[in-house]
Amino acid sequence: MLNFDFHNPTHIVFGQGRIADLAKLVPAAAKVLILVGGASAEKTGTLAEVRTALGERPHATFSGIEPNPSFETSMKAVEQIRAGGFDFLLAVGGGSVIDATKFIAAAVHFEGDAWSILEKRGRNITQAVPFGAVLTLPATGSEMNNGGVITHRAKGAKLAFSSVHSYPKFSVLDPTKTYTLPPQQLANGVVDAFVHTVEQYLTYPVNAPVQDRFAEGLLQTLIEVGPRLLTAQEPVYDDRANLMWAATMALNGLIGAGVPQDWATHMIGHELTALHGIDHARTLAIVLPALLNERRGPKRAKLLQYGERVWGITTGTEDERITAAIERTRAFFESMGIATRLSGHGLGAEVVDTVVAQLEAHGMMQLGEQREITPAVSRRILEAAL
Amino acid sequence: MLNFDFHNPTHIVFGQGRIADLAKLVPAAAKVLILVGGASAEKTGTLAEVRTALGERPHATFSGIEPNPSFETSMKAVEQIRAGGFDFLLAVGGGSVIDATKFIAAAVHFEGDAWSILEKRGRNITQAVPFGAVLTLPATGSEMNNGGVITHRAKGAKLAFSSVHSYPKFSVLDPTKTYTLPPQQLANGVVDAFVHTVEQYLTYPVNAPVQDRFAEGLLQTLIEVGPRLLTAQEPVYDDRANLMWAATMALNGLIGAGVPQDWATHMIGHELTALHGIDHARTLAIVLPALLNERRGPKRAKLLQYGERVWGITTGTEDERITAAIERTRAFFESMGIATRLSGHGLGAEVVDTVVAQLEAHGMMQLGEQREITPAVSRRILEAAL
Repeated sequence: MLNFDFHNPTHIVFGQGRIADLAKLVPAAAKVLILVGGASAEKTGTLAEVRTALGERPHATFSGIEPNPSFETSMKAVEQIRAGGFDFLLAVGGGSVIDATKFIAAAVHFEGDAWSILEKRGRNITQAVPFGAVLTLPATGSEMNNGGVITHRAKGAKLAFSSVHSYPKFSVLDPTKTYTLPPQQLANGVVDAFVHTVEQYLTYPVNAPVQDRFAEGLLQTLIEVGPRLLTAQEPVYDDRANLMWAATMALNGLIGAGVPQDWATHMIGHELTALHGIDHARTLAIVLPALLNERRGPKRAKLLQYGERVWGITTGTEDERITAAIERTRAFFESMGIATRLSGHGLGAEVVDTVVAQLEAHGMMQLGEQREITPAVSRRILEAAL
Repeated sequence: MLNFDFHNPTHIVFGQGRIADLAKLVPAAAKVLILVGGASAEKTGTLAEVRTALGERPHATFSGIEPNPSFETSMKAVEQIRAGGFDFLLAVGGGSVIDATKFIAAAVHFEGDAWSILEKRGRNITQAVPFGAVLTLPATGSEMNNGGVITHRAKGAKLAFSSVHSYPKFSVLDPTKTYTLPPQQLANGVVDAFVHTVEQYLTYPVNAPVQDRFAEGLLQTLIEVGPRLLTAQEPVYDDRANLMWAATMALNGLIGAGVPQDWATHMIGHELTALHGIDHARTLAIVLPALLNERRGPKRAKLLQYGERVWGITTGTEDERITAAIERTRAFFESMGIATRLSGHGLGAEVVDTVVAQLEAHGMMQLGEQREITPAVSRRILEAAL
């Protein structure tokens, strides 16, 4: 096992009816700005529930945080907070709203150009307005970690940041709040959480059985729950709850503590989102199978373990078992209605050059746990994903 | 899945050489009281390492915290802290030292008789002196939770408490600090962590696959690592590290979040320690197999799952598989050199009456996840454990 630090102070408030707990979770004297994406939080009644729980506390709502949330929109919220003297933020939504709220919370008291928070990846954050979250879309794990990704539309840049000041004070996870999600968003959530887990697991062995088995348990849970989410006539509470908890545990620092990590799939995927507007999770489903195949040598031992423990693959030569494990992964994504090739999004060989150029422009020269995924290797991965 | 809260703010600092991190973990202006058990922390050089890391900070050492730490000893530490104006506590040891430090930290500023903290199970704790821990004996999980157990020698009472104020600010987990432990303490650690896990897992299904698979992963890790710890000629770093991390994860609130729990084994075991001085973990090994057999009806579904996933038992009738799972558990404890019957400690039927009387005296009338383990059921469990 590698040395590690694990420190996650977010208070998780899980279960049906828990939005009412905001009454005690939010400081009594707080002036609260609620942040949301589009109209759905209002339409579904979630916002009404939130406002009721806030009771007498003065509050207002900032609406319009986009998927892949922008610096520009975030700075409008910062202005509203400064002008209105809000001292507690409440993100109501999915990963985009929570990511944006983390950035906004850090930007409010930041001196100078807040974009430098992104340029420095959050290392220059020294304080943040306290904030909590009400999760409505399980996928990114942002509700229980200290990271976010913000896009500067004018600059065409999408950068990640993190800080010890950027953990939500609490996150309310009520599985019934996912009942109105369209199937493609549920599928995105399953695939996003699956790939987060794989990226902290499928590297090389460091004799860390607790982390390995936790990761395998999350993957097995997602494989079990995922297809049922799409076929159910009515939402099933436990399936929603288990997706929600698995997605949170997939990226709260726990399974990645003390083990190597490989975020190359995310880095290549980010460029596909930026250039071609493909949903984040769907970019991961395109890149991962091709990446695992390209890196089957360095990842050999863990691919065999993954095949056996997660997919029950125990026969065939080692290479056959690895191929089978990758193909099962691909088939799982496809069974969730998610394409695993660029052609599934109407894209062909013409996009490879641009994506590779963007990776180079963003300094992604040595990705992966071995730092061996150079732009040339990324090119081979993309070509295998056509 | 059941509704739950999960909130664990302890910062884990894991790995070889991490005691040096105390230099930045302990506040620079702190006046530190180091709390230890016997002479081993001094003898092994761990205390010297701690003092070096504390640098210029004024500090002193309180020595003599016993296994099953006492109220009486704890109050001597409280006096020293009040008299010396110490404002940061550092527990260096295992579960007993850390449990005592939690109580001491809460008692320092407590008004009135500090024993009432135990009588109220910690509900009346409103503040605590901040404290950290350096773990030398992996077993109880106290390094990453907010609970403790304190014995009042004069009153003959052993009571548990917990409080949101009682989490360590940090815990340093350096696996090399376990290298000097005698085999029986390593075996105790394995069994203690194993039973902690079972008590949060072997109840009835609530469709919580993440928690189930995490628990199973901890059990599998302990089964894999345990025997090697006893047979190794020289300490193996990874085995020590994996025991340490598994024991921490077994009782930090995570695997028990959202699922029923059954702490009857602990409650019955506490009486065996109090009356007959048997090591805590060894009492659990006596009670658990008999309890699982007694409760094989209510625990049926989970016992079958446990047998299949943890021990690979897939053939035979359901009852045969359950019997096999319980016997594999017993054999595992015995393979760790730990007796699973009262007779292994030279005790016979004569102790049953007293233990049952003590359970009644301490209000343990309805133990277990179904609240069905009455004193009469506890009696049957003890008789089956002769």
